[in-house]
Amino acid sequence: MSIPKTPSTSSLSNLDIAKTLFAPIQHSEPPSPTKRHLKISIIGTGNVGMAIAQTLLTQDLTDELALVDALPDKLRGEMLDLQHAAAFLPRTKIVASTDYAVTTNSDLCIITAGARQIAQESRLNLLQRNVSLFKKIVPPLVKYSPGCILLVVSNPVDVLTYVAWKLSGFSSNRVIGSGTNLDSSRFRFLIADHLDVNAQDVQAYIIGEHGDSSVALWSSISVGGVPILSFLEKRQIAYEKQTLINIHKEVIDCAYEVIKLKGYTSWAVGYSVANLARSILRDQRSIHPVSVLAKGFHDIEDDDVFLSLPAQLGRAGVLSVVNVPITDEEALHLRNSATTILEVQQQLGV
Amino acid sequence: MSIPKTPSTSSLSNLDIAKTLFAPIQHSEPPSPTKRHLKISIIGTGNVGMAIAQTLLTQDLTDELALVDALPDKLRGEMLDLQHAAAFLPRTKIVASTDYAVTTNSDLCIITAGARQIAQESRLNLLQRNVSLFKKIVPPLVKYSPGCILLVVSNPVDVLTYVAWKLSGFSSNRVIGSGTNLDSSRFRFLIADHLDVNAQDVQAYIIGEHGDSSVALWSSISVGGVPILSFLEKRQIAYEKQTLINIHKEVIDCAYEVIKLKGYTSWAVGYSVANLARSILRDQRSIHPVSVLAKGFHDIEDDDVFLSLPAQLGRAGVLSVVNVPITDEEALHLRNSATTILEVQQQLGV
Amino acid sequence: MSIPKTPSTSSLSNLDIAKTLFAPIQHSEPPSPTKRHLKISIIGTGNVGMAIAQTLLTQDLTDELALVDALPDKLRGEMLDLQHAAAFLPRTKIVASTDYAVTTNSDLCIITAGARQIAQESRLNLLQRNVSLFKKIVPPLVKYSPGCILLVVSNPVDVLTYVAWKLSGFSSNRVIGSGTNLDSSRFRFLIADHLDVNAQDVQAYIIGEHGDSSVALWSSISVGGVPILSFLEKRQIAYEKQTLINIHKEVIDCAYEVIKLKGYTSWAVGYSVANLARSILRDQRSIHPVSVLAKGFHDIEDDDVFLSLPAQLGRAGVLSVVNVPITDEEALHLRNSATTILEVQQQLGV
Amino acid sequence: MSIPKTPSTSSLSNLDIAKTLFAPIQHSEPPSPTKRHLKISIIGTGNVGMAIAQTLLTQDLTDELALVDALPDKLRGEMLDLQHAAAFLPRTKIVASTDYAVTTNSDLCIITAGARQIAQESRLNLLQRNVSLFKKIVPPLVKYSPGCILLVVSNPVDVLTYVAWKLSGFSSNRVIGSGTNLDSSRFRFLIADHLDVNAQDVQAYIIGEHGDSSVALWSSISVGGVPILSFLEKRQIAYEKQTLINIHKEVIDCAYEVIKLKGYTSWAVGYSVANLARSILRDQRSIHPVSVLAKGFHDIEDDDVFLSLPAQLGRAGVLSVVNVPITDEEALHLRNSATTILEVQQQLGV
Repeated sequence: MSIPKTPSTSSLSNLDIAKTLFAPIQHSEPPSPTKRHLKISIIGTGNVGMAIAQTLLTQDLTDELALVDALPDKLRGEMLDLQHAAAFLPRTKIVASTDYAVTTNSDLCIITAGARQIAQESRLNLLQRNVSLFKKIVPPLVKYSPGCILLVVSNPVDVLTYVAWKLSGFSSNRVIGSGTNLDSSRFRFLIADHLDVNAQDVQAYIIGEHGDSSVALWSSISVGGVPILSFLEKRQIAYEKQTLINIHKEVIDCAYEVIKLKGYTSWAVGYSVANLARSILRDQRSIHPVSVLAKGFHDIEDDDVFLSLPAQLGRAGVLSVVNVPITDEEALHLRNSATTILEVQQQLGV
Repeated sequence: MSIPKTPSTSSLSNLDIAKTLFAPIQHSEPPSPTKRHLKISIIGTGNVGMAIAQTLLTQDLTDELALVDALPDKLRGEMLDLQHAAAFLPRTKIVASTDYAVTTNSDLCIITAGARQIAQESRLNLLQRNVSLFKKIVPPLVKYSPGCILLVVSNPVDVLTYVAWKLSGFSSNRVIGSGTNLDSSRFRFLIADHLDVNAQDVQAYIIGEHGDSSVALWSSISVGGVPILSFLEKRQIAYEKQTLINIHKEVIDCAYEVIKLKGYTSWAVGYSVANLARSILRDQRSIHPVSVLAKGFHDIEDDDVFLSLPAQLGRAGVLSVVNVPITDEEALHLRNSATTILEVQQQLGV
Repeated sequence: MSIPKTPSTSSLSNLDIAKTLFAPIQHSEPPSPTKRHLKISIIGTGNVGMAIAQTLLTQDLTDELALVDALPDKLRGEMLDLQHAAAFLPRTKIVASTDYAVTTNSDLCIITAGARQIAQESRLNLLQRNVSLFKKIVPPLVKYSPGCILLVVSNPVDVLTYVAWKLSGFSSNRVIGSGTNLDSSRFRFLIADHLDVNAQDVQAYIIGEHGDSSVALWSSISVGGVPILSFLEKRQIAYEKQTLINIHKEVIDCAYEVIKLKGYTSWAVGYSVANLARSILRDQRSIHPVSVLAKGFHDIEDDDVFLSLPAQLGRAGVLSVVNVPITDEEALHLRNSATTILEVQQQLGV
Repeated sequence: MSIPKTPSTSSLSNLDIAKTLFAPIQHSEPPSPTKRHLKISIIGTGNVGMAIAQTLLTQDLTDELALVDALPDKLRGEMLDLQHAAAFLPRTKIVASTDYAVTTNSDLCIITAGARQIAQESRLNLLQRNVSLFKKIVPPLVKYSPGCILLVVSNPVDVLTYVAWKLSGFSSNRVIGSGTNLDSSRFRFLIADHLDVNAQDVQAYIIGEHGDSSVALWSSISVGGVPILSFLEKRQIAYEKQTLINIHKEVIDCAYEVIKLKGYTSWAVGYSVANLARSILRDQRSIHPVSVLAKGFHDIEDDDVFLSLPAQLGRAGVLSVVNVPITDEEALHLRNSATTILEVQQQLGV
């Protein structure tokens, strides 16, 4: 289904106002087709997809926004609702369709679509259904935008980023999962809130598998340039291991808490993904903890597995991975996650 | 219910990191309490309230944002979801409570709360329930922020703005309804979309009662500084009255269409209200069609009735109303709306 | 002269920090060369050129900024001064050279360079020297960026835009003069200041030749959607022709006044040109009074002359000219300007 | 000299357009005088002062901007040049006068004025003349804005910040010098440029005396959360002390280089000071290396001396100083600077 232009306005065209009001200048030529025009497509217009869409528009990050969803009514409603804000925003082309042709020539495709868990459904069964869904999503995206970057937000994000990579046939730098970018933001907020500082002055990474088995890099925490752990050690201030584990636990719990309280998470993930989109499309070469092909890092040797690591993002997608120092315990934790994910992947048959 | 600070972080305070990491300078004094600090409160954290909240944050329009809702879980979930984006936004204090004390010293209070229609309920009955709701909302807002501006978004917006005015005891310049600001934006989008111009180059007002009986000011339409109607007349281009009526009809219909398609409207109203908040709090003296006390304009003589007119907004709320020229037919239409609204108001007993 | 990388940092490269700190992921490929990347070049780094450069950077309008000037020291100083702000701005590549190769693949080239008047020099002689300068500027710009838009800011802007057009061989939609965009902004400021409204609510055009013989379109003035002249007429408010002429005179005088007071104009022209750059590069389809090929408009029949008219700007440069209604007197004024400019052009032998 | 409103527009007032076009609503009251209205004053409208002014306006950081300079023509020229951009910017009140009354009720006063060095003049003599200048500047600022924050940019910044503190009688948290904020930005740019990363991902401080004797905190350098020195040590990568010294030397030299090349520095200092203004006025609690009363830190025991240290800035000025770990050598260096500055201060007799 392609959403047609609202018919009732067409009556105005009888007036030919535009043709009379605007005239071309002489010796004028049409623009060449190679002119830069940034285009982002979002697959899935649920709460997460729309929070991303709205943040991208408010931050003026794209020239064109294409929305795709399987539900044509919801899709058209969301498109119109965004379009009605035109007078308050820089001019952006907003299109929507159930047909992937609408995504043609995207620079960035953000996949937020996902199957919902059915009561008593096993995690593996749910994942199988998501793989089936991705088989309908990824090939047409690749067909219509063979040069795009794929950014996977759907959960379980690490496995589904791997699935998107395999289905796309893309080089690994062009397939990215939103991974622990949001977990790290929550980590930074909790630390900043406790110390009453600006969260942007807090550096802190959560890496590894997005979710319960994520790894908090304690040694990476710095506030205003002061590495906190070595600072405490130098001052001989004792801190209990349990305290740190509690903070990490709170990061993990707070996603569940928001879901329990309001039914889903949306705003923070919207800002988080818009932040990634900016780094990629504006070639910022900024470092974000996102899900990338982790083979070769931290003794994850031969496995094609995606996990979050601090990665430098730019116009080419993943430009590099930061060799952040981690402890043996953290490395072991990462390898265990890799093994678990690998076992799941082998059951999927992608 | 005041939402307490998450207890699990408090264990960190044993470390006294903040006290060790940060030290005061000598000869330092605490800040004087009169320091300016912009605060916006939003009453109602449904789709509309949250779209407003998110747009205000992304556009960095406030130093503090207070959310109030009757549902503590939903409220806390929304607050946490916004807070988790701290690393991606300028630092803003975000608080939430079911207790209006959280709104203390607001500069602007935005009311989006409203009763939902029950099956077979009469419009008047619904309105009576909304008046009851406003009796619980407006007095505490006035108590905690006696100097604030009240911005009413709940529907029916014109009557409820009047209700808020009466309940508040505020001077009329400090009580504003979002009115036809969004209708006018949709009008501008439809014209811009048809002519393929930037909606910000289109000037066009819809005034009067927000909703079906709104008045489109045809003579106010200009594109890039060219008044369209007189342009067409000069060029002797015929246009049918019916065509114009159809465009206006589409503006009215498209709110219903979005509601039918996605269940509610949110994004455009979010941008629209953030736009009003900017003009008010940053003292922009900009002109917007909003619901104001219309007595004395366009032959609405003795009635305390609120209708949308192009009004200049600034730090004091409504600074003035623009004496926009309207036709006799449009004036008649306005007066009829005023009469209808007045009859409803008399039944309310506010 | 190509400005080389500061040599003293190169000692750091012995450390190979980057290679150790950042590692590529596996199965990664370099980005395709067709990736879009916005590039603006500014020719001339005097006060005007640098005010434009700084505003473009602050407003985050480009991915790469190339500066060209004949004075290598001044040029390198300005480049370094901008680069030193990197920590406060989104990442933008800033390059500078006396060699036009640095402008390769620009989307927009802004020419601000111009010869300075020598004591007792005739206007024609000065213009001849500027034409000679443009013969050194325009061909290399065209060679290195054959698909770019040329935006001429140097004065006399209308003749020099024509000269740039002839020298470039570009279609006319790709050669634009900043023209009366700034005059119109001053006009809007003076009206807004007098009425104590936001200048963005004032619509008003000055068109024609940039400078003393510009034409103020009185009938185009509207405030908040109210056309002022017809409003005054309807209210039977008398106004003297002389009053309007005085306002226009003040617009013309205030450029001279700023030059007399501070020696040059810079900030307002910087914002004005950044505003045009945004409309062009972000394809805003917005309407601005800029210098375009005026042949065929307002009875300027057969002459290849550039004058400011309200034009719609987008990614292809000039998309159209607005058929703004003008009086016979205004049209006569325009034609006289056209004739004068034409006579000058014929003496130039371009 | 107070700059009067341009008289030639006043003829328009005969028309009484504003009074006819805009009408007050009924039951309206004037705003209360306590409404928040952010005001910044800049003393000195040379290249630095104006680069700050322009950046503050573009970034929309104030509701009112007051400019003060001893040269009325230059001052009025700069004010008009900024005002003429009104149509391209959010509405901001811009005023200018040689009379300090124009600064009344400022929230932040930025002092950029300074005496210029005369040939063969001793550094002490120049400083004495600057102290005389500050005796004319600081008392009227304090008189008209007793609650403001003073931000000193004039050089030598550390001594002059002390002078401003003594002359003001303010508590020490309300007197700040721009100090090494810009040096640190240059440091971050050089590191980022070398490693090809985003400068915003580089943490690195230069502290101490602004200028030749500043102290680079090597242990504070981190890139994307990885502390570089300990990273290199762990990887057993040798680096020569001389290399680090060269980088620091380049930071010091590049200010001189820009001055030699273009005659002064302006853009980077403009962004740097706007960045401080944002943290202060928007209460960001962000950490910046700025000149603060250093007594009590790093063994600077009893001396009232201002030096740059990483300080947390907010609405109350300096909220705290970060206890950043420094080596014994760095501490010695700091104390030596403190002693030198103290000796100079004792000669000034402030």
